[in-house]
Amino acid sequence: MTNINFKQLLQNKMVHKHFSEMRLGLEKESQRVTLDGALATTNHPQILGNRRYHPYIQTDFSESQTELITPVTSSSKEALNYLAAIQEVTLRSMPTNELLWPLSMPPVLPDDECQIKIAQLDNFEDVLYRRYLAKTYGKRKQMVSGIHYNFEFTHDFLENAFAMQNSYTNFENFRDDVYLKVASNYLRHRYLIVYLFGAAPLAENGYFKSSDAQPTDFVRSIRSSQYGYTNHQDVTYSFKSVKRYIDGIYDLVDRGILSEEKEFYAPVRLRGGKKVADLARFGVQYLEIRNIDLNPFETYAISEAQIEFLHLFLMLMLYLPDDLLDNDEKIAIGNQMNDAVALETPLSRLGYETEARELFAQLKEMLQTINANENTFNLVQTFKDLLNHPENTPAGKLTKQLESQTNTEIAVKLAKHYHQKAWKKSYQLAGFNDMALSTQIILFDAIQAGIEVEILDKNEQFIKLTFGKHIEYVKNANMTSQDSYIVPLIMANKTVTKKILAKHGFPVPAGREYGAINDALADFSYFEGKAIVIKPKSSNYGIGISIFKNGASLIAYQTALNIAFSEDSDIIIEPFITGTKYRFFVINGKTKAVLLRVPANVIGDGKRTISELVALKNQNSLRGLNHRAPLEKISLGKIEQLMLKAQGLTPDSLLSDGKVAYLRENSNISTGGDSIDVTDSMPDSYKQQAENAVKALGAMICGIDLIIPDKNVADNFSIIGANFNPAMYMHIYPFSGQGRRLTMDVLRLLFPELS
Amino acid sequence: MTNINFKQLLQNKMVHKHFSEMRLGLEKESQRVTLDGALATTNHPQILGNRRYHPYIQTDFSESQTELITPVTSSSKEALNYLAAIQEVTLRSMPTNELLWPLSMPPVLPDDECQIKIAQLDNFEDVLYRRYLAKTYGKRKQMVSGIHYNFEFTHDFLENAFAMQNSYTNFENFRDDVYLKVASNYLRHRYLIVYLFGAAPLAENGYFKSSDAQPTDFVRSIRSSQYGYTNHQDVTYSFKSVKRYIDGIYDLVDRGILSEEKEFYAPVRLRGGKKVADLARFGVQYLEIRNIDLNPFETYAISEAQIEFLHLFLMLMLYLPDDLLDNDEKIAIGNQMNDAVALETPLSRLGYETEARELFAQLKEMLQTINANENTFNLVQTFKDLLNHPENTPAGKLTKQLESQTNTEIAVKLAKHYHQKAWKKSYQLAGFNDMALSTQIILFDAIQAGIEVEILDKNEQFIKLTFGKHIEYVKNANMTSQDSYIVPLIMANKTVTKKILAKHGFPVPAGREYGAINDALADFSYFEGKAIVIKPKSSNYGIGISIFKNGASLIAYQTALNIAFSEDSDIIIEPFITGTKYRFFVINGKTKAVLLRVPANVIGDGKRTISELVALKNQNSLRGLNHRAPLEKISLGKIEQLMLKAQGLTPDSLLSDGKVAYLRENSNISTGGDSIDVTDSMPDSYKQQAENAVKALGAMICGIDLIIPDKNVADNFSIIGANFNPAMYMHIYPFSGQGRRLTMDVLRLLFPELS
Repeated sequence: MTNINFKQLLQNKMVHKHFSEMRLGLEKESQRVTLDGALATTNHPQILGNRRYHPYIQTDFSESQTELITPVTSSSKEALNYLAAIQEVTLRSMPTNELLWPLSMPPVLPDDECQIKIAQLDNFEDVLYRRYLAKTYGKRKQMVSGIHYNFEFTHDFLENAFAMQNSYTNFENFRDDVYLKVASNYLRHRYLIVYLFGAAPLAENGYFKSSDAQPTDFVRSIRSSQYGYTNHQDVTYSFKSVKRYIDGIYDLVDRGILSEEKEFYAPVRLRGGKKVADLARFGVQYLEIRNIDLNPFETYAISEAQIEFLHLFLMLMLYLPDDLLDNDEKIAIGNQMNDAVALETPLSRLGYETEARELFAQLKEMLQTINANENTFNLVQTFKDLLNHPENTPAGKLTKQLESQTNTEIAVKLAKHYHQKAWKKSYQLAGFNDMALSTQIILFDAIQAGIEVEILDKNEQFIKLTFGKHIEYVKNANMTSQDSYIVPLIMANKTVTKKILAKHGFPVPAGREYGAINDALADFSYFEGKAIVIKPKSSNYGIGISIFKNGASLIAYQTALNIAFSEDSDIIIEPFITGTKYRFFVINGKTKAVLLRVPANVIGDGKRTISELVALKNQNSLRGLNHRAPLEKISLGKIEQLMLKAQGLTPDSLLSDGKVAYLRENSNISTGGDSIDVTDSMPDSYKQQAENAVKALGAMICGIDLIIPDKNVADNFSIIGANFNPAMYMHIYPFSGQGRRLTMDVLRLLFPELS
Repeated sequence: MTNINFKQLLQNKMVHKHFSEMRLGLEKESQRVTLDGALATTNHPQILGNRRYHPYIQTDFSESQTELITPVTSSSKEALNYLAAIQEVTLRSMPTNELLWPLSMPPVLPDDECQIKIAQLDNFEDVLYRRYLAKTYGKRKQMVSGIHYNFEFTHDFLENAFAMQNSYTNFENFRDDVYLKVASNYLRHRYLIVYLFGAAPLAENGYFKSSDAQPTDFVRSIRSSQYGYTNHQDVTYSFKSVKRYIDGIYDLVDRGILSEEKEFYAPVRLRGGKKVADLARFGVQYLEIRNIDLNPFETYAISEAQIEFLHLFLMLMLYLPDDLLDNDEKIAIGNQMNDAVALETPLSRLGYETEARELFAQLKEMLQTINANENTFNLVQTFKDLLNHPENTPAGKLTKQLESQTNTEIAVKLAKHYHQKAWKKSYQLAGFNDMALSTQIILFDAIQAGIEVEILDKNEQFIKLTFGKHIEYVKNANMTSQDSYIVPLIMANKTVTKKILAKHGFPVPAGREYGAINDALADFSYFEGKAIVIKPKSSNYGIGISIFKNGASLIAYQTALNIAFSEDSDIIIEPFITGTKYRFFVINGKTKAVLLRVPANVIGDGKRTISELVALKNQNSLRGLNHRAPLEKISLGKIEQLMLKAQGLTPDSLLSDGKVAYLRENSNISTGGDSIDVTDSMPDSYKQQAENAVKALGAMICGIDLIIPDKNVADNFSIIGANFNPAMYMHIYPFSGQGRRLTMDVLRLLFPELS
């Protein structure tokens, strides 16, 4: 029993305002298995770097038991996004013939327990501890997996609530009691979470020894039951006060019942600093909710709705009026109810349905008090509906499926599905796929390498990377601290770029700059009959550019000037240079990739029409729409049909074998062009020219465009542009040729300590 | 006689096209004098750095004889701009009681030649050479000043002309002959330049020794006459070929008639590399025209029209058909004509008027051939008109004035006028005053310090600074290589800036960000009744910001959201913090300036109306319009009158003594606000906070805004913004308090070798 009347406190606007805020971190364990569902015997993937420092991807008890850890987030959505990304990185870092087992209960375990490999950690104490656990509980019990939900109210909320109440004079005491109330109420009412979320009806062969007591039928959650991953019966604890909680654990350790503090496996832990003793010093900082089973029907083992429902449920635990029981009395009742519900058969109705409906009623009242929106009411209703439909709970659904399939069949099928999903668009990163492609890729590489990632501004592609104490900020995947401020300003200004390159002896098209259309018109005679390019001075994406390979008529010249001036107040007219344009991607003085871009095209097979060939080519998973993929789908619009017409073709023409039909004149990837990596076939001499030019500009990361008439003839080229934020994804996932992981080059540039 | 029929070559379009192009550098000598016109006895100003390396400001023969040197430019206008800037820097670097003597002929020279101080150069050989000159020619002759006009055809022109002719197979021979033709024709016809430009009618006391032969009346140009600064009679030379030219000079040196090559004082020199011998190796690169008198009626001693006329005149020298005379025969005639015209009395008509009119006719024909525009014809006509009006030539005008004033009076009056002009808007820099103020100021400082400046892009304020081999590019005066690329991107994003500052423990207003107006509207109740600021996320200039000190009504809130969203796709709403806003300007970890901005205001004197007080305040030369001055003139428009009304005032109100009337609520300088330097009175603790915050952002140059309720109470502040391109001029030329030369701090940061 606490002294907090929270319903009353909620009357205050500021308390009310901050009540729904939270800080949340998730941990998810799961077993690596082979394609037929056997425990993987391989080591933790080396590409994930060392578990000594990896912030997101660890191993728990066994070498095969991955533990995914999200950073602290401030919403259900954000937490799930991180979990999604981290799991996707894990799946794509594992051998392709391994899966993540989607169930809390482990796969079939080897007869010989010795074949379960304890996690091979650097720290010998960590290994010793796991050996002790294996001895005390048996390795089998340690193989159970679940989700831990680390929950914190915001400081704004606690501070405002403290300011509004009269019972406490000390903030830390108040906060401790808030968390003690939530924790003990959660332990009291957690049977409902077991009913709604329980997903461990069955133990595979090998989990129980034949001599073990074990359930005789499917249950809601072996994991949450007495047969699960719990301390021995003699481990008791108190939530009456933080002091009693700490002393209780110390006592267990002193008496040798627990080997270490962290062996304390209550379904809820009070968390302060790293050690239990820190709780006494700092007070309770957050709660660790530990009784969440992996939901096999969710890609990431928990849905956003589940995360949000748990959040509301924890808010409710604070909202509930005090009754006459003290915390430990509540827990005692809660434990009994939990044990009973965990062992109910999954397709039966909840034994404590009346109590559950009362809780839902209280929850509704709370939602009304805080003016929750319709979505929230609907979400709660979805879970409430499960009271009428036990067959729709995860355990219920599994049980139904087990009527016709084996547990392993179900698990492997789901695991394969999630595995394929993770690989389907491997240029994207789940959780962040609303960000720009290159940013998604660098986030993937950073997470894989064990660099902490934080999204400072999603719309602006602004991220923070932290490795140990080393912080780097990155925008658009390659705008970094490594370049100096003046360099992108130079590259953004075509006139200045050309002046500097020319001064350093590089061939650049000699152009003229105009600030007024009349000045440019007055010079028409100067350009008449010449092959020219008319372009805005500062644009960087090919917009507003007109090319006249055979000179321009006065009218065409005038139109092109208008187009260019509509993009910029200054324009440039320069000679059009014939040859092939190559993009050299130079990082830290080295050419890391060379790319050729070819206009949208299809190659005939003598059987298909152009429409069919386009449709076929568009099936490539690298092709998408609106820059969500490394290549763009080819259209068959007006421009493309005109282009075909010029070649005497229509979309219905059958294209003879090996014949190429172009659908565009321009080679932009954004209009369906192909990206072709030619890094290896480009002579070194040109790479050196590109590197020297980039050096002259002072750039660390630069995409520089060279026009080369014949790359096998040396020293005949012209530099037509330098880009300070060059796209990387097209080099990483080219249409043909080898992909070049430029994002890793950027990371190595920023964090030389990585390699 | 050469083999180039240039009239015919001009038929070719490409030759035609490039004929008017040039490369041009100017040198201008002049004597430093006291306010009463006596030769200055002070040393060359120390602030101009060492003459060992100064690219623009040197001394010639004597310590008092400044020599201003422009870089090579490509137009008359550009050359004059540089000359203007360099002269203005020189004038503002000299003691305030010194002037630049505006005449070619020196001021009154001391009786004792020993009092003329030879330039105190580091290089002993340079000093020895000057000693030799003093001995050979007498110091007095060496004190004559003039303008050297270094002229070059463009490579495009020469190359195209070479390609079109048939007489030469070797490009260098062709080019040599082009320049030999121009040089010898110039020497042949230079009498016309002496007539049009001559401005040395009189020698002051002390120039001639009493025993010297000397003119008995005013003349067009003593300097260009036999009494001027010429070699002795036995110095003869040939322009028949480059070889003859070189051999001739070598011969003079060998025979001891000249001490060194550079003692060769022909009115035109062929120039190759540094030494005459380089001519043989590289051929003629350009011509040095040396017979231009200082025009005392022009601020910079030569007008743009004169520069352009000389350009046309030199083009004409190439255009003229060959006659039967060889180069040296032409020169012999030219010398005689020159000597005669130089000694004509200035108010008489030109003796060779018929020849001159023939030249003007040829010039007109040339202009027609090259389709010159109307302005060019008019310009030529202006000079042609001088044939009818000798009194309008510089020498003629001087002679007229000498009827009523002494030479010294005229010279001092003009010199003072140019001196005042240079100081009038000392925050601007002549020649570059169409650039942004801070850029003008940093150009001033760079030129003064002897750093080479090049304008890469005038509209974009993009400059190149070179000191020895060290190159720095600068945009907008403080966007430099010293900051890293990511830092301005951080500062341009208010959300990211706040996140980073908050993470480092700095107090920032806790705001919310919105990407859609409906989301922001939905949160109205959260902000209702609070003091808030609504602003676009990325704007940096106070645009789109609304402040509600007493909370906003829903309508006002809605309006403010619309305004903010019209500037950016994302907006921020944060608490309005009360206190005074200070701008801390931090460079390289040190607070270099702290500024307070006060809204437009006037202070009463009990006598004047507000209108009168505004007019009076607007007279301050620091106030201008449209950011052309460090402060803006105060308006008396609608907003100002409303503001007065709120104080019970109108523009006609008489304001009592000491009473302050505000004309604006906002403190922007751009709406007439006052800038007040408070660097010295700001406690160090706040400077340290600013420095630490800038360090947290990683910035080298940053203007960071702190709101401080009371600066004498420590540690109570909030950071409300950080600017990556903060205005510097307002700190350098504040309304009150000490100016802080931040541009010098930037230069020292870029060029630590300076100090």
